Amino acid sequence: MDPYFATSDPCWLRPEDARALLERDVDVRGDRGCAATVRREVALLRALTGLEPVAGRGRVVLATLAELGGEGRDDVVGRVPHGLVAEGYAVVPDGDDLVVTALDDRGLLHGFYALQRHGERLLGVDRPVLDVPTNPVRMINQWDNMRADGPMGSVERGYAGSSIFYADGRVVADRARIRDYARLLASVGINALSLNNVNVHRDESRLLTEHLGDVADLAAILREFGIAAYLSVNFAAPIELGGLATADPLDPDVAAWWRRTTDAVYAAIPDFGGYVVKADSENRPGPFSYGRDHADGANVLADALAPHGGVVFWRCFVYDHLQDWRDRSTDRARAAYDHFTPLDGRFADNVVLQVKNGPMDFQVREPVSPLIGALERTNVAVEFQVTQEYTGHQKHVCYLVPQWREVLDFPTRGDDGATVREIAAGRTFGRPLSGVCAVSNVGDDRTWTGHPLAQANLYGFGRLAWDPTLDADVVLDEWLALTFPGAGEVQAALREIMAGSWLTYERYTAPLGVGWMVTPGSHYGPSVDGYEYTAWGTYHFADRDGVGVDRTVATGTGFTGQFHEPWASVYEDVTTCPTELALFCHHLPYGHLLRDGSTVIQHIYDTHFAGVEEVEAMVARWEGVAHLVAAEVSEEISRRMAEQLRSAREWRDQVNTYFWRKSGVPDARGRTIH
Amino acid sequence: MDPYFATSDPCWLRPEDARALLERDVDVRGDRGCAATVRREVALLRALTGLEPVAGRGRVVLATLAELGGEGRDDVVGRVPHGLVAEGYAVVPDGDDLVVTALDDRGLLHGFYALQRHGERLLGVDRPVLDVPTNPVRMINQWDNMRADGPMGSVERGYAGSSIFYADGRVVADRARIRDYARLLASVGINALSLNNVNVHRDESRLLTEHLGDVADLAAILREFGIAAYLSVNFAAPIELGGLATADPLDPDVAAWWRRTTDAVYAAIPDFGGYVVKADSENRPGPFSYGRDHADGANVLADALAPHGGVVFWRCFVYDHLQDWRDRSTDRARAAYDHFTPLDGRFADNVVLQVKNGPMDFQVREPVSPLIGALERTNVAVEFQVTQEYTGHQKHVCYLVPQWREVLDFPTRGDDGATVREIAAGRTFGRPLSGVCAVSNVGDDRTWTGHPLAQANLYGFGRLAWDPTLDADVVLDEWLALTFPGAGEVQAALREIMAGSWLTYERYTAPLGVGWMVTPGSHYGPSVDGYEYTAWGTYHFADRDGVGVDRTVATGTGFTGQFHEPWASVYEDVTTCPTELALFCHHLPYGHLLRDGSTVIQHIYDTHFAGVEEVEAMVARWEGVAHLVAAEVSEEISRRMAEQLRSAREWRDQVNTYFWRKSGVPDARGRTIH
Repeated sequence: MDPYFATSDPCWLRPEDARALLERDVDVRGDRGCAATVRREVALLRALTGLEPVAGRGRVVLATLAELGGEGRDDVVGRVPHGLVAEGYAVVPDGDDLVVTALDDRGLLHGFYALQRHGERLLGVDRPVLDVPTNPVRMINQWDNMRADGPMGSVERGYAGSSIFYADGRVVADRARIRDYARLLASVGINALSLNNVNVHRDESRLLTEHLGDVADLAAILREFGIAAYLSVNFAAPIELGGLATADPLDPDVAAWWRRTTDAVYAAIPDFGGYVVKADSENRPGPFSYGRDHADGANVLADALAPHGGVVFWRCFVYDHLQDWRDRSTDRARAAYDHFTPLDGRFADNVVLQVKNGPMDFQVREPVSPLIGALERTNVAVEFQVTQEYTGHQKHVCYLVPQWREVLDFPTRGDDGATVREIAAGRTFGRPLSGVCAVSNVGDDRTWTGHPLAQANLYGFGRLAWDPTLDADVVLDEWLALTFPGAGEVQAALREIMAGSWLTYERYTAPLGVGWMVTPGSHYGPSVDGYEYTAWGTYHFADRDGVGVDRTVATGTGFTGQFHEPWASVYEDVTTCPTELALFCHHLPYGHLLRDGSTVIQHIYDTHFAGVEEVEAMVARWEGVAHLVAAEVSEEISRRMAEQLRSAREWRDQVNTYFWRKSGVPDARGRTIH
Repeated sequence: MDPYFATSDPCWLRPEDARALLERDVDVRGDRGCAATVRREVALLRALTGLEPVAGRGRVVLATLAELGGEGRDDVVGRVPHGLVAEGYAVVPDGDDLVVTALDDRGLLHGFYALQRHGERLLGVDRPVLDVPTNPVRMINQWDNMRADGPMGSVERGYAGSSIFYADGRVVADRARIRDYARLLASVGINALSLNNVNVHRDESRLLTEHLGDVADLAAILREFGIAAYLSVNFAAPIELGGLATADPLDPDVAAWWRRTTDAVYAAIPDFGGYVVKADSENRPGPFSYGRDHADGANVLADALAPHGGVVFWRCFVYDHLQDWRDRSTDRARAAYDHFTPLDGRFADNVVLQVKNGPMDFQVREPVSPLIGALERTNVAVEFQVTQEYTGHQKHVCYLVPQWREVLDFPTRGDDGATVREIAAGRTFGRPLSGVCAVSNVGDDRTWTGHPLAQANLYGFGRLAWDPTLDADVVLDEWLALTFPGAGEVQAALREIMAGSWLTYERYTAPLGVGWMVTPGSHYGPSVDGYEYTAWGTYHFADRDGVGVDRTVATGTGFTGQFHEPWASVYEDVTTCPTELALFCHHLPYGHLLRDGSTVIQHIYDTHFAGVEEVEAMVARWEGVAHLVAAEVSEEISRRMAEQLRSAREWRDQVNTYFWRKSGVPDARGRTIH
C-alpha cells in the first residue's frame, strides 16, 4: 500500500482529522486523474484508522458535473451555486447524500480535502456551498539544490534539513516523502510546484535534459495531486547545455534550442507547467548580457512553451547587487519598478512576472511593491516567502499569515482602487494567468519545517492562495484544530502565542521598517551595521543625529513617487507616513515625534523591550501546556522557544545599545541598556 | 637526482645566489647528518648552474672542530672566536682556505647557507667570524589540516593554496615539495617544525598512531636539514584514540597512555621533537574539563616525553571565547597573564610556554604580552604570525619584520631590564629551552606564499629567530638581493615599497591600537562593528562621544597593571601612553588631544587618508619597475597590489564614515568622507 507519512509528521492531515468523513459512505465516481487519487486517499485513511461508514450518517458522493448529468441528477446540477470554475467545487446536500461536484477531477480533490479539513461543519451543511480558488496560479517554489556541498547547501534558505527531492546530484530514489509533500500541498489547494532553486547551477541545468526522466517521474506524482511541475531554468542553458556561443534571446539558434529542448520536455511530460527564471539577478545570467531587455528574455522562453500551453514565471528580483555603498543615489527599493514598468505590455501572454511582495527582499516589514500596482497589461504573480529567511529561520515562532494578509489587502491602486489580492487574482486588468507564489519552508526534517509551529505558514499560504480573504485568525484556528485535534487547551495557548508573533518579531528586530539589520550571509540574528557598508544596497544610514532612508521625491531617492495616489503622498509626507514604515521612507532625527506620539529613539527602545517581554510571555504560556503535547514535539518546540528568547534578547540589547551609543539619548524609563 | 624546486619558486635560494661559493672548491668533511646534506646541496647547485671552481679562488673547507682537531689543524681551532654553541658556526680564514667550523653538523649546514646568502662578503673575510643562534628554539608551526573540507580548509589562515603536507586525509605521497620547504627553513636557521594545525581534529589525532610511519618519513626529510619534527596533539587523545573514559591529566591510565603512545613515537622517530598543544582554547579540550590546571595538563605530556628528551610547547592562547559583550569587566587582553602567571614554576623543565607576542591575537598593533615578562621560572617561546591573518591575507604588502623587531626590543622588565628578545633567548632567567615560534605562511602555491613579496616575512622570521638584533632593513636588503639578484632598480623600488608597509597597513586599518575592526570569520577587510557584539571579547566601545578600551587600573579592566614599571604607569597615564596604543589602553573622547598633537578623530581621518596615499605611491613605484621583473611574478604582484589599493580605500572609507557618523566631527582638511 501507498505509505502515508511513514517517516514524517502528517501535519494537518492526521488520519483522525478525517473521522467525520470516514464515518460516512464515500462514493467517488470516475477513475481518471485526481478522482482515482481521492478514491485511494479514502481507502488509505480507512486502512490507517480502521474507520468504516456508520449506519445512518449518509453518503458522500464525489462526481463531476458531467458525471452527475450522465446519471440524470439534473436536480443536483441545477442547485450548484453560480460561479463554479476549474479546480473549484460545490457541496450540495441531496437527501441523505452530500454531493461534492466540480468541473474537473481536481475540483473533486479539493472538495475531498475540504471535507477532511472542515469535517462535520461542511459535511452537515443544509444548503449548497461553493468554494472556488481566487488565484489561478497557486505556486510553491522549491529552493532545493541537487548537491548539498555548494555555498547554499541542500536547500537555499532552508531551515528544516536537507532537500526531500535531491541528494548527491540526483533526484532521490525513494519518493515516498515527495508523494507526502504533494499530498500536503494539494490539501491546501496548491496547483503548481517549481522543483529546483531559482539559482540554477550546473547539475540543476541538466534537469531539463539528462535528468528529464526523473523529472517526469516527479511530475507523475504531482499530477495525481493536481499539481503541475515547473523547472527553474538557467538563462545561459543554450551555452551550458546546448554548446552555443550565445544565449542572446534574439538569436535564432538560441530560440531554436529553447524550442527543441522544450519540445523534448513536453514529449516526456505532456502537462508540464513551464519555467521559472531568475535572470540578471545576483550573478545569474540574463538578457542584459546581450543588450536585450527582460521582455526579450522572457518571450523567447514563452515562445518555446506556448505551443504546449506552458508558462514562464519571470522573476522581477532584479537590482544592482554590486552597488557602491558610497553611492547615495541608487536605491535598491526602486529597482523592480524601474526595470519592469517600462516593459508593461511587451510580455507574451504566457509570461507571468513574479514580483516579490515588497520592493526589497522579504523583510519583516516593507511597503507593498509598487510594481504590483503598476503593471496593467502583464500577468503578475505576487511572491511571498514561507521559509523564514529574515524572520527567524524557523527557530522563532513567526506566524506570517497576518503579514501576507496585510499585503494582499493593500489598496495599491488608491483608496477605492484595486487591492493587491484583486490584482494578483487577475481581476483588475483581466489577466487570466495571475496569482501567488511562495518559497517553500520544508526539508527532510521529520516535522517538515524544523519548528513544528512553522507548518502553520505553509498551511496558511495555501489557504490564502486559494482564498485571500480568509482571516488570519480563522486560518490559524483551522490549523490548530487539525494539528492538535481535541487538545483545546493547547490550541488556546498556541493561538495566543502565534497570532501576534509576526508583530512581536518585528518589535525586537529592525525598527520602523528600516530592515536589514541582520547577520550578513546567514540573515539570522542581529548585526546592525552588518550590511551597512556592503554592495547589496541595504542601508539604514544611522548616524549620531538620526536613522532611516530618505526615499521621498522631494529630497530622497524618489521611491515614494512610484506609488499611485494617495500612497505617493502618504509616504512622502512624514506626518502621514505609517509609523511602521517611517524609517523605510524617511531619514529621521532620533528626537522626531512619530505619529504614535513617541520619539524615534524611544520607539526603538520601547518596542525592543516590549518584543522581548512578549517572547517571555510566549514561553511562559507554552510552558503551561507543553506537558499536554507529545514529548517529541513538545521538546522540539521548547528548545526552539528557548533559542528564540535568547535571540530576541540579543536583538534587543544589540539594537538598543547601538542606538544608545549613537544617539546618546537615555531610555525615558531607565531600563538597562548595555 | 634530488629535485631542487622543480615545481616551485626557489625564493631566496636561487642557484645563482650561490655563484661566489660555487666558484670555489668546496670541501665538506665527514658524511654524517647535515654534512652529507651540505655535500649534496653543493653537488646539486653545481649541476644546476654548471658552475665549477675557478682557479685561484681558493678553497672552502667545512668541518667540525673535532674533525679539524683530528686533522691537526689546531691553529684554526685556536682562532675560532669564543662563544661557539651548538648549531652555530665560525668562519676562519686559513691561508688560501676558508674554514667553516662548528660543534656539530647542523652548524656546518648553517655555515654553508650563510656562505650562499652572503657570498663574497663572507667568503672574503680576513678575520674569524662567529655566528651563533640567539634562540635555542626557532620553530615554525604549520596550521595545516589533513582534509580541505573542514570549515578552515586545507591550511587554517593559509593564503597560499593548499597544504604541501596533506591531502584527502593523508600525508601526500610526493614529498619533493616538503624537501624544498625544509631546505628553505634550514637556510634561514629554523630548527623545529610542528607538522599540523594546533586545532587537531579526528584525522590529525591519528598522526600519532596510524599515520606514524608517514610522520617518520617526514621527520627523516627534516632531519637532513637539521630540523626536528613536532606534532600538535589533541589533549583528548586518550579518549579519542585510547578509548579511555577520561583525559584527566592526573589519571594514572591517562599518563600511562601518553607514555605508551610517546614511546611508540620515539621508537619510530628517535629524535622526534615533541608536542605542541592548544588546550582549553576556542573549543579545544584541556585540563579545565577535569578541574585541573594547565601545569597539570602540560606536565603529563612532559613526563611522557622526558625520557626521550622531548619537549611540550604549551600555548598560552587561553581566554573566554564565549564572553557576553554586555560584560564590561572581562578583558580578553588580561587572560593569558591571569591564567599562567600563577603557575610560574610549576611546569616541568621540558615544557615551554608558547606566548603570543601580544595579549590579544596577532593584531597589526598590540602592546607586548605582559606574560612574557612575568614568567621567571618557566621556559618561554614567543609566538609570532608570519601568515598574514590580520595583516592582509598576503594580498597586501605588509613586511612584518619591523613589527617583530619592535616586540623583541621591548624592555618589558623595565627601562634597564631585560628585553623580550633576551627573555625569549632564555638569558634573563637562565632557561635553556626558550626561543621563538611562528605560524607559517606557505602553501602549495608556486610562489609558496601567494604574494611573492610575502616570502620576505618567512625569510625575515628565520633570520630574526637566529639573530634578533638584525636590523629590519638589513634583512630586507638581504632578501631583496637574493630574490631579485642583479636587479638593483627593482631592489630599490621594493625596498621603498616594503620597508614601511607594516606602518602603512596600520594607518589604513583599525586606528590607535584598538584592533579587531575586521570582517568576522575571514578577518579580511573592514567591518568596524563586526566583532563589537560578539562572544570573542574583541571590542572598541565606540559611541558618539569616544572610542577605545579602558584597560587602566584606576577605572578600567586593570590590564595595564600586569606590566612591570615603568610600563604599568606609562600605559596607565593617557598623557604618557604611546599614541599607537592610545585606544588599546584608554577610552578617549574624539576631541582628546593625542601626544602627537592631533585629536583622536582627526588622527583617525589623517592616518586613513595617509595610508591610502601611501598605497597609491607604492603602486606607482611598483609600476615603474614591474617591467623589469619576470612577467609571471610581475603580474601576480600587480594584481595583488590592485586589490590592496581597492581594499585600502574600502578601509579608509568605512572607518572614516563610521567615525564621522558617530562623532559628527568633520575632517579639518575637508576631504571626502562619505
